[in-house]
Amino acid sequence: MTFTIGIIGGTGEIGEGIAMRLSPLYDVVVGSRDTDKAETSCECCISSQKEQGVVCTLRGGSNQDALLASDIVILAIPFKHLVTTVESLHGFEDKIVISPINPMERAGHFIYTPPEEGSAAMKLAAMLPDSARVCTAFNNISGNRWRALDTELDYSVPVCGDDAEAKGIVMDLINRISLLKSYDAGPLSSSHIVESITPLLLNIARFNGMKDVGIIFR
Amino acid sequence: MTFTIGIIGGTGEIGEGIAMRLSPLYDVVVGSRDTDKAETSCECCISSQKEQGVVCTLRGGSNQDALLASDIVILAIPFKHLVTTVESLHGFEDKIVISPINPMERAGHFIYTPPEEGSAAMKLAAMLPDSARVCTAFNNISGNRWRALDTELDYSVPVCGDDAEAKGIVMDLINRISLLKSYDAGPLSSSHIVESITPLLLNIARFNGMKDVGIIFR
Repeated sequence: MTFTIGIIGGTGEIGEGIAMRLSPLYDVVVGSRDTDKAETSCECCISSQKEQGVVCTLRGGSNQDALLASDIVILAIPFKHLVTTVESLHGFEDKIVISPINPMERAGHFIYTPPEEGSAAMKLAAMLPDSARVCTAFNNISGNRWRALDTELDYSVPVCGDDAEAKGIVMDLINRISLLKSYDAGPLSSSHIVESITPLLLNIARFNGMKDVGIIFR
Repeated sequence: MTFTIGIIGGTGEIGEGIAMRLSPLYDVVVGSRDTDKAETSCECCISSQKEQGVVCTLRGGSNQDALLASDIVILAIPFKHLVTTVESLHGFEDKIVISPINPMERAGHFIYTPPEEGSAAMKLAAMLPDSARVCTAFNNISGNRWRALDTELDYSVPVCGDDAEAKGIVMDLINRISLLKSYDAGPLSSSHIVESITPLLLNIARFNGMKDVGIIFR
């Protein structure tokens, strides 16, 4: 089965990297608040992948375009823009919505700062229509790793969600990307643990002289 | 530099496994509420290691014995026994205290249930004299893996703590055990993230048909 993937915030570090990795596998619509920026980003991606002999299908548009065109939409935006972005869009009904969002602040080291709903994913789900099926995924992989197309992404990806079918689709999608391996990490209410791992990884990178640290379960 | 390691709750699954792995490297005192049980556990460990040609130094005693004899004490007890255990003991002054404790409950899946102090480690630190130096470590390794002496422990171990010297000593200790690799994971206030990873790993094991799942940072 083939899907169209929309990426809201698709010209940010993480969004652009996800677009680069997904566009050889799926039809991808890169959304941005700035449509020109989305189109330029797509042209760059297409030409750089063409040099490697990789054909990819992606086009740029507004965040609203990306949402409406997609079966699966990835919200690749910082937590601070979550509410305004979601409120500015319509058409989330029946979509699978992936949240890679990690609410955190820097106070010397990084601190996990979830909203009162418990996690970014739970807050997002509360804002969306009931028919939207939210899954947490891609929370713990750095933008740099996503964009380094000459190296495999060899990480574990925990997926939280309450809709078994949607979770299965998201897990299959993940398993097609490079060497990523998806794991069912339980209901959406467990997302706070997955989100909080990102400030932990940033602290580990900083305190141990590392870069772009990710996780493997085994 | 050589240390004596005391293990409070040293006859539980995790405590026994830690004793088995540490006793060839350090003097270990296995503490238990039941002194006879601690002694029997030590005899078992000594004779089974002797068969492998491994000499280990450990002896059994009460939890109080283990604490008083040690430079570094590991609190290998369930969260529900934390307060009563700590209140029943004296002599934590100047000790390095390792907390592998993960407050969690099972409600179908496992849920992280921290106390109001934010984490088991923060609650522990609040109960101890100021001169006790608490570090979080060994939170994410299952008792089965600790006790399977025929297989290496090939995991990452995040360490949180506010005393740099104590943290360094704990990290060196970890790096001597099997293939474990320690990482400075920031201040003690970040312990909640490390603790919460354990219910996540238990859920991942359960929902993905795995056993004794641990983590690697890379």
